[in-house]
Amino acid sequence: MRTHTCGELRISDANKEVTLAGWVQKVRNKGGLIWVDLRDRYGVTQLILEEGSTDKQLLDKAASLGREFVIQAKGKVVERAAKNDKMPTGDIEIRVSAIEVLNPAKVPPFIIEDETDGGDELRMKYRYLDLRRNVVREKLQLRHRMMQETRKYMDGQNFIEVETPVLIKSTPEGARDFVVPSRVNPGEFYALPQSPQTFKQLLMVSGFDRYFQIVKCFRDEDLRADRQPEFTQIDCEMSFVTQEDILNTFEGLVRHLFRNVKGIELEEVKRMTFAEAMKFYGNDKPDLRFDMKFAELNSVAKGKGFSIFDQAELIIGICAKGASEYTRKQLDELTDWVKRPQIGAKGLVYVKFNTDGSLKSTVDKFYSQEDLKAWADVMGAEPGDLMLVLSGDEKATRKQMSELRLKMGEDLGLRDKSVYKPLWVVDFPLLEWDEETKRFHAMHHPFTSPKREDIPMLETDPGAVRANAYDMVINGVEIGGGSIRIHDRATQQLMFKHLGFTDEEAQKQFGFLMEAFEYGAPPHGGIAFGFDRLCAIFGGSDSIRDYIAFPKNNSGRDVMIDSPSTIAEEQLKELSIQVAIATK
Amino acid sequence: MRTHTCGELRISDANKEVTLAGWVQKVRNKGGLIWVDLRDRYGVTQLILEEGSTDKQLLDKAASLGREFVIQAKGKVVERAAKNDKMPTGDIEIRVSAIEVLNPAKVPPFIIEDETDGGDELRMKYRYLDLRRNVVREKLQLRHRMMQETRKYMDGQNFIEVETPVLIKSTPEGARDFVVPSRVNPGEFYALPQSPQTFKQLLMVSGFDRYFQIVKCFRDEDLRADRQPEFTQIDCEMSFVTQEDILNTFEGLVRHLFRNVKGIELEEVKRMTFAEAMKFYGNDKPDLRFDMKFAELNSVAKGKGFSIFDQAELIIGICAKGASEYTRKQLDELTDWVKRPQIGAKGLVYVKFNTDGSLKSTVDKFYSQEDLKAWADVMGAEPGDLMLVLSGDEKATRKQMSELRLKMGEDLGLRDKSVYKPLWVVDFPLLEWDEETKRFHAMHHPFTSPKREDIPMLETDPGAVRANAYDMVINGVEIGGGSIRIHDRATQQLMFKHLGFTDEEAQKQFGFLMEAFEYGAPPHGGIAFGFDRLCAIFGGSDSIRDYIAFPKNNSGRDVMIDSPSTIAEEQLKELSIQVAIATK
Repeated sequence: MRTHTCGELRISDANKEVTLAGWVQKVRNKGGLIWVDLRDRYGVTQLILEEGSTDKQLLDKAASLGREFVIQAKGKVVERAAKNDKMPTGDIEIRVSAIEVLNPAKVPPFIIEDETDGGDELRMKYRYLDLRRNVVREKLQLRHRMMQETRKYMDGQNFIEVETPVLIKSTPEGARDFVVPSRVNPGEFYALPQSPQTFKQLLMVSGFDRYFQIVKCFRDEDLRADRQPEFTQIDCEMSFVTQEDILNTFEGLVRHLFRNVKGIELEEVKRMTFAEAMKFYGNDKPDLRFDMKFAELNSVAKGKGFSIFDQAELIIGICAKGASEYTRKQLDELTDWVKRPQIGAKGLVYVKFNTDGSLKSTVDKFYSQEDLKAWADVMGAEPGDLMLVLSGDEKATRKQMSELRLKMGEDLGLRDKSVYKPLWVVDFPLLEWDEETKRFHAMHHPFTSPKREDIPMLETDPGAVRANAYDMVINGVEIGGGSIRIHDRATQQLMFKHLGFTDEEAQKQFGFLMEAFEYGAPPHGGIAFGFDRLCAIFGGSDSIRDYIAFPKNNSGRDVMIDSPSTIAEEQLKELSIQVAIATK
Repeated sequence: MRTHTCGELRISDANKEVTLAGWVQKVRNKGGLIWVDLRDRYGVTQLILEEGSTDKQLLDKAASLGREFVIQAKGKVVERAAKNDKMPTGDIEIRVSAIEVLNPAKVPPFIIEDETDGGDELRMKYRYLDLRRNVVREKLQLRHRMMQETRKYMDGQNFIEVETPVLIKSTPEGARDFVVPSRVNPGEFYALPQSPQTFKQLLMVSGFDRYFQIVKCFRDEDLRADRQPEFTQIDCEMSFVTQEDILNTFEGLVRHLFRNVKGIELEEVKRMTFAEAMKFYGNDKPDLRFDMKFAELNSVAKGKGFSIFDQAELIIGICAKGASEYTRKQLDELTDWVKRPQIGAKGLVYVKFNTDGSLKSTVDKFYSQEDLKAWADVMGAEPGDLMLVLSGDEKATRKQMSELRLKMGEDLGLRDKSVYKPLWVVDFPLLEWDEETKRFHAMHHPFTSPKREDIPMLETDPGAVRANAYDMVINGVEIGGGSIRIHDRATQQLMFKHLGFTDEEAQKQFGFLMEAFEYGAPPHGGIAFGFDRLCAIFGGSDSIRDYIAFPKNNSGRDVMIDSPSTIAEEQLKELSIQVAIATK
């Protein structure tokens, strides 16, 4: 149907008779000439028809073409008079001898250009038209590239790609499962996997040694902007490895992707313990594109009569380099910002380290220039810098300061989307206390091994037990996480006990795994990367939705195909279920 | 945890101090020597310990190792006295200096060797142990190789891999859907895709031009041995193509896979129309590893007083080369075989073309040597051959003869698993009549385009309309099928009408697709390969189940994890459904 795509003809093709096919991007009609921009995935090629030298019927046909018509055009490649060096095909045009309309098109509901006038809702409903825009399609081409390169690396490292089942068993741990009623087994349900965790561990028991899969996973959670009910993971597991082996292998993967997809040589991947991350950045996924480390000021700021600080559990400051020129208005806005309910700070103390060496703070009444100089020393501040200080309850203050640090990084232009700062955060706590259910939850998952030296603390101080667990963080976004797993029945049982499972519950849900551990399970560990998010990071976007071909909206609906939907009574009957909507 | 795998040490590694880890395959203890075969995915390495030169404690530890214990062993690589040239590591052994038991193992429920004593049920329950057997793991390694090579080819051909959604919309056409209740949208359900058909067509409307995906699909059908509720497809679609372009592209894929996975240069892929396949082989997926084409005998066998033939609608014969020596007993068995209810023939006529040139048949009473010689001419039979003849109603007779042909091929050893005969079957009928529902069904699917010249027959003789549809067949197995699609609203609507949809039903189910066709849909077509089956063919197996890591049994159960299972009342309530098992 075509001899060439719309992206490939060059001046060296001049005089060739060609056939192209694609979409009409634009028709211009001026001074007896008609130009048609013909578009496909590969590019745009200009067609030209001239009054006089072209027959009238063909001219009329060309003039009547609408936007997004699908046509086939035959003609000769000729050199353009006015070259367009912005287009790869800009040196040539096609002098058209025949046009066939393969399919006409209605006027699209929004403009199919990089800049469109379509709102979110409309573009979701006509996603197939939105995907026609170059900027959108390119995101999915990036995703394709990421998938191919991931597989190339993993295959090269001797990992075997194994497809694990989608119809599995519902487990009460973690997020809510999507379930699937079984027709053949009335009253019983499959669940869709939140991850292939137990299967990949069983593959290690099977001696597969190195497993990976790029796999759809499912969580029936209330959706936020960056969550989808179905999402994709790069899921991996290795046997006979230490944590160090895993970090090196997957640092290699990320390095390979940056090199081969973006042409970037990634710098060294830093490492930081969870405790350090919390202490210096107030969260477990610090954005290292900028410094602004927390400095603790208790020793220099207490005992000077400022009661707020004197009563605070923790006083911490950050130093915003070169920001001493912030105006009063800017600083007031910053103060209002930290006091917003989402942040929740009581107030903000700032100290300007003026370029003349003087210090000006909101607490000059309590602190002398020497006192403030001592703060500056702790924070590493120099003339020209702005120091921002928060205080209060330790946990809350770190959290607030983390938000403030990110905002300052943003405001000062330090979060450059073309810069990538990868980081391993290691030594996560094994358990976290859940106030609501009054019990411990597994911070990673129940299969994560505690550090051997911390096991005795399981009885005495469970919250302090560290896990062999690690996250990879890039630019403040967690892109992957994993752990060295438990591989013996006794430890796994102990773990379930500490998570509040009765022996019976543990056996019913995970008996097959614990039994497998008794038949020669090797030490093993693994990791899973959030593939949608990884693509978004590579694409320089904050939203994973852009990197999913057919995403769902915040109510889990696909508005294009109008799903979910009701099903026939007959179908429900076959599945031995009934709809029972609770009246409120 | 290891310096080498159990498959990599060679004589050139002699004197190296190494650490290996793996499973104890076998322990032998003889004349003061202990040998341990240590196994991992990569191979087996022999460990050796000698009384006297090894300390007592280590000897005792080695002697006490059980089968399938997971151990780590340190020692020195030494040349073996008695080399084993059947093992890649057979020139060396490890003189052990330390052993650590990483995990003991209970005695496995069946032997972990290529030949096992475990029955199907037991091996399914302990699938993780079955997967430990080399012969089983190698099947999944083949599958891995097939996936990687498929992607390599498709990527090289400019196809973009796009993940389409798993949570989609239930449609009444085709097999039964698995459904997923939506918690957020009470009373509504997602369906799991039977194929990504509509999504890949929308991607063509989006201008993706070439799409592929290796994707899980789902069908809630009653299971047979070679069906699974979840299965994998290589799913593909292309724009601006003719059928010829598609056949060439995917012949290329299959050729690439044979070359790169099996080292086989595939011969030319033959082409045959559906009509020819039915006429000469009695089915739409002929096994071309052997000839035995049907010969029609009506003109030579009627009118000789044999009333069975005289009354038959069709008389067909096949010629089994070199089988004239079949004994009376064998021929009686063959006659019994065709009369079994599964085959349903009334009887079997045979003619031996003896090596002396004489002809001996079961119908000598009615046919002279000359008559039988005329049969032989039609069938291409020569002295030494056996002719087998069936007669009756045309459709049934072709079907019976197809079965008989396959059986003869099998019995005569003509269905060699190492020989591959690929074939395109083209020009399938568009519709097939369903006696039960008394209406036409789409033979491929409702999106398949009729041949343009046959469209008028839609009104007059729908069953005779041919489709732009094709199957790839290898060795009598359909491994893939596809079609050129309808790409305009009017034809799609006409098609739905002929399939018995009301306009309203068509709009409700597929309105989004028909609307998409109005916004500039390019001509397009595609194909889907059954990936599990393709792997089985490549592996020389009849069962797809062997090529699936965690298959389900014939009741759709995963007996290893015990799924499906009941779920909590709480969970049902959240999902706004109730279990309602019909009492019979």
